[in-house]
Amino acid sequence: MIPIVSIVGRSGSGKTTLLEKLVGELKARNYKVAVVKHAGHGFEIDHPGKDSWRFMQAGADSVVVSSSGKLALVRSVEHELSVEDLSRIVGADFDIILTEGYGQDRLTKIEVHRKELCSDLTCSPQQLLAVVTDEPLETSVAQYAMDDVVGISDLIEQMLLNNRGEDISLFVNGKFIPLNPSSRETFAGILAGMVLTLEGIEEVGRLDIWLKGRPEDWNTHDC
Amino acid sequence: MIPIVSIVGRSGSGKTTLLEKLVGELKARNYKVAVVKHAGHGFEIDHPGKDSWRFMQAGADSVVVSSSGKLALVRSVEHELSVEDLSRIVGADFDIILTEGYGQDRLTKIEVHRKELCSDLTCSPQQLLAVVTDEPLETSVAQYAMDDVVGISDLIEQMLLNNRGEDISLFVNGKFIPLNPSSRETFAGILAGMVLTLEGIEEVGRLDIWLKGRPEDWNTHDC
Repeated sequence: MIPIVSIVGRSGSGKTTLLEKLVGELKARNYKVAVVKHAGHGFEIDHPGKDSWRFMQAGADSVVVSSSGKLALVRSVEHELSVEDLSRIVGADFDIILTEGYGQDRLTKIEVHRKELCSDLTCSPQQLLAVVTDEPLETSVAQYAMDDVVGISDLIEQMLLNNRGEDISLFVNGKFIPLNPSSRETFAGILAGMVLTLEGIEEVGRLDIWLKGRPEDWNTHDC
Repeated sequence: MIPIVSIVGRSGSGKTTLLEKLVGELKARNYKVAVVKHAGHGFEIDHPGKDSWRFMQAGADSVVVSSSGKLALVRSVEHELSVEDLSRIVGADFDIILTEGYGQDRLTKIEVHRKELCSDLTCSPQQLLAVVTDEPLETSVAQYAMDDVVGISDLIEQMLLNNRGEDISLFVNGKFIPLNPSSRETFAGILAGMVLTLEGIEEVGRLDIWLKGRPEDWNTHDC
């Protein structure tokens, strides 16, 4: 799975600015970076009269506009998607996903702290990879100055990006299922073997599969 | 795989307007509809100062903004993606994808014809599911009037949407691989069986898998 680092902190602490700088630094280190931003109060992106807006107005559930340099997707959702669901939409072609506004326990988090806003952190130390702060804090967590983007990127690189390469991500019924190393290896072997039985396929560098069925078909299968 | 219908025709023939009406009619028939639009001359969707714009400016390869009712993704690409690649990004949660501006042979196409633009069709009859025209044409292809959205939707429904339900889509090294019915069944059985060996998984209604590896690992596998 692509590593995800979530930037958290109080409103006005500077999360977006930090994220922006981290994107620049990680790009300069040659990583492919995706950003997922939580917009608590909704957002506007497509505009009246534009084709994407017209199709959404007509009732489309999703609109993609594609050109030679860029693509955009707008999609209506019934409820807010989890970071894992969003990372599936982002795709597998990235080295890291940086998020803003997602505080779930299971995510690797960096908190931005500004003394004028509050003396306490919003997360407990054991939940944090690091704190970015404008004052020294009494905490066991690694602390970085607001402008130490190089130091923070070194940490992210060291902790999360040193094992770039193979990866397998599994989602069952839309939910991300973590795999232990032995399952990863078994699954990768089965999948590669299965696909190599097809005529004309001589190697598998990357594989994307969707299986969408009637639950009653699969759960009674004799396997 | 999700059925794709591509609306083609000369510039100014009314492709976007037809597409807009088809979206409305298919939605009214309770289908989940996605639209993929080819923007030959590029397009603008995110705007200066907005977060998505800031992150892209900072160098992000992809930005997702997510709220409780909507999500948007903007992504830079090195070359224009195929309809199949785009349909993978759209996701598997749709009944049909309507596209505009994609004329590839392998796609099911409906051509919009307007007599003031040109007397000939851009596609040969055997490439077309139907023609939508403002004049009677001498062709073997089914013809519909410009405003006969109900008739065109009936045709799409009858030809492409009557087998809603199970589906498996396979992409190897980013390329869509069509499966024959017997491979579909074998693969679905293997995949469901594999996943059901995992603790805590009792049924598989839907499965998404990505496998990303070093080619040399998979193509030498003893399978």
